[in-house]
Amino acid sequence: MSTITILGAGAMGSAIATPLRDAGHQVRLWGTHLDDHLIAAVRDGKPHPRTKVPLAGGVATFLAGDLASALDGADVVVLAVSSAGVIDIAQLAAPHLAGIRAVLLTSKGFAPDHEGRIILLPQAVEAQLATPLPIVAVGGPCKANEVAARRPTAAIYAAAEDPQGWARFATTDAYRVAHTTDRDGVELCAALKNVYAIALGVADGLTESGGEPFHDLKAAAFGQALAELRRLLAAEGADPWTALGLAGAGDLEVTGLSGRNKVYGTRLGKGQGADEALAEMVAAEQTVEGVPAVALATTFIQQRHPELAGELPLLHAIHAVVHEGTGLQRIIDAALPH
Amino acid sequence: MSTITILGAGAMGSAIATPLRDAGHQVRLWGTHLDDHLIAAVRDGKPHPRTKVPLAGGVATFLAGDLASALDGADVVVLAVSSAGVIDIAQLAAPHLAGIRAVLLTSKGFAPDHEGRIILLPQAVEAQLATPLPIVAVGGPCKANEVAARRPTAAIYAAAEDPQGWARFATTDAYRVAHTTDRDGVELCAALKNVYAIALGVADGLTESGGEPFHDLKAAAFGQALAELRRLLAAEGADPWTALGLAGAGDLEVTGLSGRNKVYGTRLGKGQGADEALAEMVAAEQTVEGVPAVALATTFIQQRHPELAGELPLLHAIHAVVHEGTGLQRIIDAALPH
Repeated sequence: MSTITILGAGAMGSAIATPLRDAGHQVRLWGTHLDDHLIAAVRDGKPHPRTKVPLAGGVATFLAGDLASALDGADVVVLAVSSAGVIDIAQLAAPHLAGIRAVLLTSKGFAPDHEGRIILLPQAVEAQLATPLPIVAVGGPCKANEVAARRPTAAIYAAAEDPQGWARFATTDAYRVAHTTDRDGVELCAALKNVYAIALGVADGLTESGGEPFHDLKAAAFGQALAELRRLLAAEGADPWTALGLAGAGDLEVTGLSGRNKVYGTRLGKGQGADEALAEMVAAEQTVEGVPAVALATTFIQQRHPELAGELPLLHAIHAVVHEGTGLQRIIDAALPH
Repeated sequence: MSTITILGAGAMGSAIATPLRDAGHQVRLWGTHLDDHLIAAVRDGKPHPRTKVPLAGGVATFLAGDLASALDGADVVVLAVSSAGVIDIAQLAAPHLAGIRAVLLTSKGFAPDHEGRIILLPQAVEAQLATPLPIVAVGGPCKANEVAARRPTAAIYAAAEDPQGWARFATTDAYRVAHTTDRDGVELCAALKNVYAIALGVADGLTESGGEPFHDLKAAAFGQALAELRRLLAAEGADPWTALGLAGAGDLEVTGLSGRNKVYGTRLGKGQGADEALAEMVAAEQTVEGVPAVALATTFIQQRHPELAGELPLLHAIHAVVHEGTGLQRIIDAALPH
């Protein structure tokens, strides 16, 4: 049994408390200054406002000001804030991590380092830590509301050392954890699935607007996304087979079924302009991680893999439509064989 | 320009006439004795009863009794009957194939040979031919109604020789054809996607019956299906990467979105018994190819790959639920990591 402090009380932070508690650990949930109303709600016995599921029983909750006590005596941290906030929170927590033996990272995406190079989040978090800690990447098709409600879920944990041990650490009957040493592969798939889900949503939007299914297009985009992930993973020295597994195809499948990135793509498919679609979702407090992620991803590729410039047409088409106002036909063309 | 005779005037046979005609070929559509009413409908100028889309302009139609004239002077055949009928029709057509240079095969599945060995359909068709002909496997995520209506579609053609030439032969703006030499890989994926789609449907059925999403389970089953396809392809000496491509992940995606195998699985997920679900669909003239396919597939694996007995838990779970009356929990367990 470990004492685990979850940093970030949003949907995924509160949700992962369920399997960790069910697996027999002591669990603490700390909210950032943006989460105080979420902590207040669950303290009142209400369902978590994001997942609509009550917090697992026996989880201690901490407000933003109580970070030091939340981490006092803990031996494992789960970092579960939004990708935009993860660096700040890692920096804030760094002085309190003396007794911690690993960080489980559910946040996904890219971030610039201090020299403007785009890197994956585990590297960005590592750069904030005073002393190195093992970082376990948490990937796979896990919707927070389903994890919180104990519906059957497959996750995949990636760590350089003892990934099997970390998988066992969190596995329950409902939340089953596979494992791999390919942390970069899991992180790349996880970061990019939010981008490719926009293209899947476009097919759904075309279906909704015309009343005729564009299922072939959705499946073509799905296949093209996996082909591009395979190429990128190979170029990065990650295991390209990770693209076929839970972190790649599995997570892309669930992200194409629901979620904000897919919903944003659906708006585009129904004819809404990229800027207007984003503005309306932001106004409704719906972050669309794929929008900044596609810009960071294209920079990441320019910086690290200029040889891939022509090999990722769907990724570049999504970037063009989202950030350059290019018409949707570009995504349709890029999803199909040439 | 070629003269192409499509054998089988059901959904896929009539649908593929659209891209073949658009690609500039002479196209003839022949219906089996089961298809005479379909030919009659399109001759009357009505939409095809299965796809609800009119037959492409300029396609000549032939009734069951006119097989010889349908094939007279043709140089390419498309075999597009149901998997249950493909052997009979290949036998019937064999004497008329003197001028034919290739058979494009859209039918998918397994069949027993004369010694009771389960084989893939291309081998079964080859056994019916008087002289050997190249067989081009037509795979990828292609819903007949979408192909017929010229909605964007990605197919993949597999042939031992010049697959690129065959891809070019059929490619149009809307129907884009990728290519591979891995015919066995494409055929295995195509045959088994109907089986795995039952498990995807189960997750949809659980979602519908409870009102709460089981998206994580659907995605877990998706990932598990691809992992099993990879293993089986490797054991067969096919290219395991085919499982990641249009024939594998792409076709599984579209088969999990709609279609009769998925609908059958959805009935199971909603609590209907396997026999009752099948009986109701058969009564509504809805063939569920995955049901016989899973029995043939398990025999195929016993015969050819006994070493895989424990490596394909989801396939065996689907067999147990569909053919042995085992409870649904078996599929849920098998979809998750162990």
